[in-house]
Amino acid sequence: MEIAVAKGDGIGPEIMEAVLHIFKAAGAPLNYQFVEMGKWVFDKGFGNGMTPEAKSTIEQLGILFKGPMETPKGKGVKSINVTARKTWNTYANKRTFQTLHGVNTVFSKAGIPIDLTVVRENIEDTYGGIEHQLTEDVAISRRIITRPGSEQVIRYAFEMARQKKARRVTCVHKANIMKITDGMFLNTFHKIAQQYPELTVDDIIVDDLCMKMVTRPESFDVLVLTNLQGDIVSDLCAGLIGGLGFAPSANIGDNICIFEAVHGTAPDIAGKNIANPTALLLSGIAMLQHLGLNATAAKIENALLYTLEQGFHTGDFGDKATAALNTTAFAEKIIAHF
Amino acid sequence: MEIAVAKGDGIGPEIMEAVLHIFKAAGAPLNYQFVEMGKWVFDKGFGNGMTPEAKSTIEQLGILFKGPMETPKGKGVKSINVTARKTWNTYANKRTFQTLHGVNTVFSKAGIPIDLTVVRENIEDTYGGIEHQLTEDVAISRRIITRPGSEQVIRYAFEMARQKKARRVTCVHKANIMKITDGMFLNTFHKIAQQYPELTVDDIIVDDLCMKMVTRPESFDVLVLTNLQGDIVSDLCAGLIGGLGFAPSANIGDNICIFEAVHGTAPDIAGKNIANPTALLLSGIAMLQHLGLNATAAKIENALLYTLEQGFHTGDFGDKATAALNTTAFAEKIIAHF
Ligand SMILES: CC(C)[C@H](C(=O)O)[C@@H](O)C(=O)O
Ligand SMILES: CC(C)[C@H](C(=O)O)[C@@H](O)C(=O)O
Repeated sequence: MEIAVAKGDGIGPEIMEAVLHIFKAAGAPLNYQFVEMGKWVFDKGFGNGMTPEAKSTIEQLGILFKGPMETPKGKGVKSINVTARKTWNTYANKRTFQTLHGVNTVFSKAGIPIDLTVVRENIEDTYGGIEHQLTEDVAISRRIITRPGSEQVIRYAFEMARQKKARRVTCVHKANIMKITDGMFLNTFHKIAQQYPELTVDDIIVDDLCMKMVTRPESFDVLVLTNLQGDIVSDLCAGLIGGLGFAPSANIGDNICIFEAVHGTAPDIAGKNIANPTALLLSGIAMLQHLGLNATAAKIENALLYTLEQGFHTGDFGDKATAALNTTAFAEKIIAHF
Repeated sequence: MEIAVAKGDGIGPEIMEAVLHIFKAAGAPLNYQFVEMGKWVFDKGFGNGMTPEAKSTIEQLGILFKGPMETPKGKGVKSINVTARKTWNTYANKRTFQTLHGVNTVFSKAGIPIDLTVVRENIEDTYGGIEHQLTEDVAISRRIITRPGSEQVIRYAFEMARQKKARRVTCVHKANIMKITDGMFLNTFHKIAQQYPELTVDDIIVDDLCMKMVTRPESFDVLVLTNLQGDIVSDLCAGLIGGLGFAPSANIGDNICIFEAVHGTAPDIAGKNIANPTALLLSGIAMLQHLGLNATAAKIENALLYTLEQGFHTGDFGDKATAALNTTAFAEKIIAHF
């Protein structure tokens, strides 16, 4: 199987190298086409952060595996990640958040297990970037929610929930204030829910959800949200398990899917071989599952979980009393645990 | 001193009674004008949830102390709370979140102290309710941010931060996506910040803030936000200290200030004398401070904190092994600790 790979910026190349090394050692039957995409490509003069060759390779292969990318500075310049999601209509963003033994948080210490899946609409909302300055003193942004856009992400969430026999599917919204836009999203949710009678469904206002997410996160399972609320809630959920360094992300479209690390590019530690490859590896495992390579995915996942559980860690987390491994050594430990 | 009091809906009347009883016992030099406001008033046919007499009394006295109010159901019907904020241009919403000994959370158990003040713009943003359905399939909401609106809330936050010698004032935003609207808010923040050179200021993207808020909440102090992001982050912060039942809220305007409990009306337990009056009491303490009645405020606050610390509690929190007090008994305990 052939997939497109974009190493990204900052720590991107070194964590990608570590992950592909693990894939190889696990015998993943994958071939890679490395594509030019990222802030470094933007800097070469490609406004959307990718070369035309990169674009056509990705469109031909249908799967992009990518490292973190820096958002270029400047007026009117868009995030490369957001542009990619829009370009290929990856309408659903799926992020899973699970307690990882060995990654200590206040929740793990309190014995509260985290097992959450956030499905976020990935294109609409204020991410449309339809904004203008009406006068010197007044700025307006248009928040657009469409029924077809809501339908496709909600349907995706329900199909996924059915497959994983979810305990609960919760629509998160602010329809008490945004009665028409979030009202449309919420109504669409309940309409589609009727086709999944075996699932427990409910809805909750986003502020209330955020309060409950830090008091009883174990009561939630699958969450479906509009784009910006989904962005905020995703990061909150990431915090519950130790941060974005431990959260995989998949952007799902009908023709193209993007699996990515969504943490920063950490320019301060780039090139030092000390970055944590876990989020990218977890995204890679999600990609292997998506490709039907379930045995390879399980082999790597089990080794990763075991490695973390044994207390091996990079410098950004884990027991400060034990020595941190560098990126390469951490990858080797995982391989040793196959 | 004379203030307007609206008992609110559901558990509102009984927690208000408990709080006013505590005020009386503490010798607070206050007279009350009880005004008709709430869902029950809406149900009597007053569309904005208050009688004309209530409105003019509140405008004459300038201070409203209110219990929780239910949002009436129905198309085009607005939240009574939100209508009140708009009617009197209470442009800043201030909520403080502090670890309360006796109220156990995963953070208190982990020894992580919470001491946060959220200052939220209270009128603009999608709370303007400017929404329409363009076609059967497309809904649009306008998010409006103005410079004067941003200025007044940001200035309020800085004045408050100066007074309390804040460690840090942080502007929270999503200006990487809403470049023009949140860009205006963020620029206004940094411009006004220059007039407060003694304060440490910085800014952070809202999703990143939410992640850090659950991993290292102790690193934040005063947060300034636009309306909806402020709504979400406020509830997240409330969760960190045990929930909305422990968070005071003040709506600040130039002519009128509203001190309120922002938790729900809990219709299921209304009239049973078992509700927790703490959030309303904390809002009342903030009101006493606002009125310059600092000694009375301190007397009540110390007694409340001591009562909680000693393990006294209503049925919604505290050690399950010890008997819960009812609302009246809890109030009496506080009074006994003056
Ligand atoms: C980088 C940023 C534009 C992006 C977003 O807001 O979607 C990020 O926060 C994410 O969650 O992938
Ligand atoms: C009741 C609701 C409209 C309100 C809001 O969204 O502002 C509430 O959540 C609050 O924070 O006071």
